[in-house]
This record gives sequence, C-alpha cells and structure tokens, in this order.
Amino acid sequence: MRTVRLSIIGFGAVGQGVAKVLLAKKDQLEDIGLDLRVVAIADSRTAVIDTDGVDLGAVISRKKTEKTVGSQDMTGLEIIEKIDHELVVETTPTNIVTGGAGLENMFMAFRKGRDVVTSNKGPLAVKYKELMEASKLSGSKFRFEATVGGAMPVLNLTKDSLAGNRITDVEGIFNGTCNYILTRMTEEHAPYEQMLAEAQELGYAETDPTYDVEGIDTACKLVILANCVFGMNATYEDVTVTGITKITPEALLLAHNDGYVIKLIGEVNDSRINVAPKLVPIGHPLAVAGSLNVASVQTDLSGPITVTGRGAGSIETASAILSDLISIYRN
Amino acid sequence: MRTVRLSIIGFGAVGQGVAKVLLAKKDQLEDIGLDLRVVAIADSRTAVIDTDGVDLGAVISRKKTEKTVGSQDMTGLEIIEKIDHELVVETTPTNIVTGGAGLENMFMAFRKGRDVVTSNKGPLAVKYKELMEASKLSGSKFRFEATVGGAMPVLNLTKDSLAGNRITDVEGIFNGTCNYILTRMTEEHAPYEQMLAEAQELGYAETDPTYDVEGIDTACKLVILANCVFGMNATYEDVTVTGITKITPEALLLAHNDGYVIKLIGEVNDSRINVAPKLVPIGHPLAVAGSLNVASVQTDLSGPITVTGRGAGSIETASAILSDLISIYRN
Repeated sequence: MRTVRLSIIGFGAVGQGVAKVLLAKKDQLEDIGLDLRVVAIADSRTAVIDTDGVDLGAVISRKKTEKTVGSQDMTGLEIIEKIDHELVVETTPTNIVTGGAGLENMFMAFRKGRDVVTSNKGPLAVKYKELMEASKLSGSKFRFEATVGGAMPVLNLTKDSLAGNRITDVEGIFNGTCNYILTRMTEEHAPYEQMLAEAQELGYAETDPTYDVEGIDTACKLVILANCVFGMNATYEDVTVTGITKITPEALLLAHNDGYVIKLIGEVNDSRINVAPKLVPIGHPLAVAGSLNVASVQTDLSGPITVTGRGAGSIETASAILSDLISIYRN
Repeated sequence: MRTVRLSIIGFGAVGQGVAKVLLAKKDQLEDIGLDLRVVAIADSRTAVIDTDGVDLGAVISRKKTEKTVGSQDMTGLEIIEKIDHELVVETTPTNIVTGGAGLENMFMAFRKGRDVVTSNKGPLAVKYKELMEASKLSGSKFRFEATVGGAMPVLNLTKDSLAGNRITDVEGIFNGTCNYILTRMTEEHAPYEQMLAEAQELGYAETDPTYDVEGIDTACKLVILANCVFGMNATYEDVTVTGITKITPEALLLAHNDGYVIKLIGEVNDSRINVAPKLVPIGHPLAVAGSLNVASVQTDLSGPITVTGRGAGSIETASAILSDLISIYRN
C-alpha cells in the first residue's frame, strides 16, 4: 500500500466533491494499492490539519452547518508551505485576470517539491509557462484534466490514448451553460433571455452569466489547450471571442431547416484560438444537445476523435481530479 | 534514447500500416526518446530479418510488387521464438472460432518474455483469460486498443483517463460498415440490399458481408470489452446477436419522424452482452452518422463519457497500435 498525504486547498463545491469522492472510493483505491490520506483542508477562512488523516465526513458536515472546515487559523498557502505532504489538490475560486490565490498556491507547492492536481483554470490561463517551468524545476507532477471540460477527458486523451498521433486541431463545446441555452432556444423556439432565465432557475447559469455566455470561460479553456496540446505560450489576450447573446430563435430555425444546429464552438490550432457561434450539421459528433461538453481532436493518423461528457458538476469535476491522482501514483 | 526491437507478424493492411507509421514517425518518436527498431517481419509465406533494423520502405515496396516481405524461410512463430527482440506486433488475419495463428503467436511471445501489441480480435475473443494469465506470468506487457474500434480509444480511455471511475455499462456502434449502410438507407430511403452494394463498391463492406452485417464483428469486440473492462471471462457464445439485414427503409423513416435513428448497438455490462438494432434519439451522442464508431461509457461519478472515431482503416488501426507502443515504453 502506498500512502500519499494530500491537502485540499479551497473547499467550495469542487473541494467538497473531492472529499466526498475520496470517502466513497476508499476501498476501491486500496484495491489498487493507494491510501490517499488528506492531512489538511483549508477554506478561505479556516483550516483543519491532522497528520493521521482528517475525518472527511465530519469536515463535510461542519462546512455545511458552520460554513467553516475547522478551527485552525492557517491559510492554504501556509499549509502548503509548512505541513509535510506529497500532493496539493488546488480548488480555490478561479481568477482569470490575476490567477488569484491559486497561482501563489501552485508556485509554493512546486517550491516545496509537492505535486499539484487542480480544477482551477485561472492560474493556467494566466501563467501556464511559468507554472510548467516551476513544476519541472522541482520535479513535481502537475496535472489539470479537470480545468477543461470537467469530467470530459481531453487533455489526458491527447497525451495518453492518442500518443501516437500529432494533434493538428481541437474544436468543441467547452461550456455547458451555452449549450443548454442554445439547445432550449432551438427546442422551444424561444428568445435568448427566456432560456437564460430558465437556465438560471435550474442552476445551469449564474446570476451574472457574463463569464459563460460571452465566451470567456470557453476562451480560458482554449488557452489551456493551446498551451498544453500545442506547446504555445498563449494567454486570454490571444483569443478572439464572440458569445451567444446575439443569437435569435429565427437564426436557429433557419439553421435547423437546412440541417444544422448553432453551437458556441471553441477552436484552437497552431495558428489561431477562437470562440464563436458556428453552424454544425445535425448528426455530426459536435452536434450534442443539452448541457454536455464535447471536444473533437483532429489527428494526423486517425482523423477526428471526438469525446463527449459532462462539463461541470462538483462530483464530475472531482472524478477528473481523482483520475489525475491515480495516474500519478498508481504503479 | 531507448531502443526497442520489435517484430511485425502478419503483413496485410494493418501490418503494412504499422510499418508506414513507424517510417513516418521516426523523428517524432526520437523526440520522445524512442528508437522503435523493426528486426523482423513475417507474412504468411516469407520473412525478412535484420538485427540492425529492417529497411521498412523496401519491404513495403517489395510486398506491393512481389507479394512477399522477403526471401527468408521462417514463420512468424519461429521468429517470435528464436529472434531476440522485446515486442511482437501481432497483425495476422483474425480467426474468431479458433483464435488462429495469432493465438499461438501470442502465447509464444509471452513464453519468451516478449511484450505484445495487437489489433487481432480473434485470440482475445477466444482465450482472453488464458492470454492475460500468460502475460502476467512472464511479466510481459499486453495491449490491444486496436482490437476495439480501430482508432477510437475506448479500452485505454477507461483504464487511464477514467481511472477514478467505476464503469457500469458500455454501449456503442462498433462496426462502421453497419453504420454506413444504415446511415445511407436513412438518407436515400433505399433498401438494405442497395446500400450494401454501394458499401461493397466503396470498399466499406466485404464481398461476403456476413461478419459485419450479422453483428459478429460487434459481438467479438463486446467480448473483449466484457473481459477487459468488466473482468468477465466471456466468449462469443455469451453474446446475444441480431444483425441489420431485416431493417427496412420504412422502419428508418418511421423512427426519423419520431426523432430517432436506428443503429446497430452493442452493449455490455456485468449482467449481459448484447448486439441488436436500437432506436437512438437524434442529437444523442450515440447518433453519429456515416462509417464512424462510437462508444458511450457509463461511469459511477461522471455519468456517460462518449468517444467517437474511425473504427477501421490500416493507418487508423496502426495509430492505435503506435499509441499502445508508446504507452509501454515511454518514460
């Protein structure tokens, strides 16, 4: 049995999802020889530290009732610096302008020689190259499948399953909120505002939907893809972005009558990074309905390989984090 | 640079595809530290052996003009037994009843401690458990992504990218010929026989199409999935199989008017293995058109993850073999 001591830094929906998944999968992980022991958890105000292993069930309950993870007065950054452990699960709120606390946390983790698995897009969209260099310098493992498309495996797919191929282009739907709104506008022949309101009621869209519907979220994911898959050194400024707020039910109907749907498509290759609504033929692998995400990876040998899955959700995102964890420590 | 000596046993479309891909990717492989050196190639009549590395371009040309790979009188089995090398690429013609020459070749490879990568379904559909045991006993690596869905990564996807999930069900379209015929029947409102003839003309279907259209090929792939993903010890006899020959254009039209397409769907979970035509809603990830393959993997944490790609073709299948090779030997 290999014991890996880890911290969970950031205890919102995804951090809690990771704790729940680690609890639920304890036996399954032991079956493959892994004891993933959480020795510290931090939220924005408090911390809980236990070198014998934090009681995850108790912390999840406490967070629900008392809104804090513990009574210890230590920041995530201090935990990463001072507590002995191998791996940092970085799940603080994302900040795509500065990189936020996540950026400092990751640099500190690498400085201390710890591995990092994260779902936090911000730091990777802002300082990808610097983070990769820092992780290499310290010999740390750094995995971030969960940053692009939640449960939909696209980064690891290109690196592992498609290792024999050169990737020439990636395009897809990387935002479930936009896909949901466009799908419902088509089904109901209803205007954008009405279906946005429905998406907000159902929890698919935020009160301020700008980040999703203006294509910003998609653009951040494309930056990560550009850097990770194409070896670029891109940031948000390199992306051309158009959102979905100007699309009308009439445009969707016209498209449908010609055998097309309209989707917010993100595309990246070695010459451009672009987010914009596009016509997709019905029956095409990219024409998936509802809130799904989809990525179509163009390869030199195999043509297009397309993967579809849930792009959000705390447990779904946590599952991508867990798969990254396993891939690092499994023999 | 790590040198891996390998043999290609069977030099039909896929074996030649592997040789072409190794030639084309030489530099790219060296960039990741791999020198994949083919030291022997055998077809059903002749062999070529060169411990310094076979001239792949010359062998591909010779096979085209003289129908043989070389002038040496050695069988594939003898090469595997007697020539020093690390890896056997097994691409002999598949035999789903006995396992054919491939079965003996793989057992011999394991007996000699060699790794095996293959696209040959027969041996895995007939003696999966015995092959796995033999490979474990000798400490050999054994990978066979190319046996299920050609370039579409599904076995490695479940093992690697989705490692954090438990797989509860796999369903999909695992035969491009059937998908092509059903897609064209829908588009042209034409009978089965007519679209089969078109598929045969275009090279998508064999002169004797039984293996594809009766669901036998799909069933073999399901057996491999059942054993590999669900840890079963299944063979072809455990599969319930219905093909596509009884489907009419009228049935496809009725389905279409209700928002469905009809696809030959293979499904496997821990209680059943089944191949049959099924209704799939238009817009559903499984509803892909043309000759594509698709697999939808149901997971405990992430819901369904669906992957689509070309299910056949010599270069496409060779690319899956190459990805398996890289995954074994890359650091």
